[in-house]
Amino acid sequence: MEKPLILVINDDGISANGIRNLIRIMNDFGDVVVVAPNKPQSGKSNSITIESTIRCDKVIIDKGPQEEYACSGTPVDCVKLALNQILEKKPDLCVSGINHGSNSSINVIYSGTMSAAIEGALEKIPSIGFSLLDYDLNADFTESEPYIRKIVKKVINYGLDEGVCLNVNIPKSIKGSSLKGIKVCRQANANWEEEFDLRTDPKGRFYYWLTGKFVNYDKGTDTDEWALANHFISVVPIKFDLTAHSSLSTVNKLFLDE
Amino acid sequence: MEKPLILVINDDGISANGIRNLIRIMNDFGDVVVVAPNKPQSGKSNSITIESTIRCDKVIIDKGPQEEYACSGTPVDCVKLALNQILEKKPDLCVSGINHGSNSSINVIYSGTMSAAIEGALEKIPSIGFSLLDYDLNADFTESEPYIRKIVKKVINYGLDEGVCLNVNIPKSIKGSSLKGIKVCRQANANWEEEFDLRTDPKGRFYYWLTGKFVNYDKGTDTDEWALANHFISVVPIKFDLTAHSSLSTVNKLFLDE
Repeated sequence: MEKPLILVINDDGISANGIRNLIRIMNDFGDVVVVAPNKPQSGKSNSITIESTIRCDKVIIDKGPQEEYACSGTPVDCVKLALNQILEKKPDLCVSGINHGSNSSINVIYSGTMSAAIEGALEKIPSIGFSLLDYDLNADFTESEPYIRKIVKKVINYGLDEGVCLNVNIPKSIKGSSLKGIKVCRQANANWEEEFDLRTDPKGRFYYWLTGKFVNYDKGTDTDEWALANHFISVVPIKFDLTAHSSLSTVNKLFLDE
Repeated sequence: MEKPLILVINDDGISANGIRNLIRIMNDFGDVVVVAPNKPQSGKSNSITIESTIRCDKVIIDKGPQEEYACSGTPVDCVKLALNQILEKKPDLCVSGINHGSNSSINVIYSGTMSAAIEGALEKIPSIGFSLLDYDLNADFTESEPYIRKIVKKVINYGLDEGVCLNVNIPKSIKGSSLKGIKVCRQANANWEEEFDLRTDPKGRFYYWLTGKFVNYDKGTDTDEWALANHFISVVPIKFDLTAHSSLSTVNKLFLDE
């Protein structure tokens, strides 16, 4: 049987610890091609580069068997470029991450990691985004690894519904407590309460840093936030149809006189 | 009765013809505060600025009664900054646009215009994104105006379901043919078939321009693409819950042994 062709992307940049671990794991599953940003692209969501140009160069970062390209664009640019210019055939799997930090609940809409997976799903490729709830650049991925392997194996063997990708978030390792397993969840209704840190530059002009506090308004026990708080790995199936189907009739009534 | 407080944003930049028209219209409906990017931010999706700083300066662009701020960040940064730092109370309405070009079907996930409206909805503010299917910087908004007024009036009077915003796309004016009215629709299942234009810079290095062809795979007559092709204004209710609820059980079965 031919080895699966696997596209690996991330948003923390091609040299981040998270993607280096993911590449190492994926080399055991198939032929790996990495097309990843040449610099951090966190919080870039589904951004595409349309007002400027994109660079993409073949690079060698370690001694693994994978083929790698560093791209000046966003995670979504990387997927589009991989499919259109770099890969000779459509990949069998697209994996993104491992992100340093959470992409659970509302973070999914800002995440570059998950946007790469969504772009894969749009192109009808089984796609998974992995995130570890640890912002540390030297985060420990040891405990996550067997779960990542399990999830990848399932998706390679059984596929996913067309247009659907998985948002996988993994709790941070806690000494003396092990992960409890995998929970399939819905996206929690949570949000950021923003704060802006107003500062003054050396010339006396104002500037801001975006910061904020994450607040979970959702009391459900079927959400990703619940799973993570209870030391489970959360798996949320994600789609790109943003239509609020349940509001179609209400909005229709608004314009009945049209 | 107190006049409604209206926040106006866009992604084409604060001096674009589209937002100048929208500001002029909105001044008839309430007290207008504009917080918009100081440069084009098309295709920026839900991007937020977390790796660098944000500038935001009060500006005067025309003689209208509105208050205006030009921001170095993305459309979503503009909304967050407006709510947290600029406005003294929560606005009654958030309008984004008028975008120069379509944000129908899959374009909604890449759009900065619509991301500002989604961010408004996240903050429980009735929010609308307007787009005209005309990329011309000097596009003619005359035919759109009465429809924009009608939609704004309805939303001010009746509100929207919590967490839901409207994606309004308006066909380009055609001489001798007038708009047929408003259709409430779902997001069409359409996509871009990307192409990258590979070029060589003066130093002999390669670079790319992202380009592509839009393809509608959806034969439904209840979609935004159908409405627009038939010269209707499309109105799609949009939400930020990306959970593929209909795939929860399939994905659950994958991990039953967990």
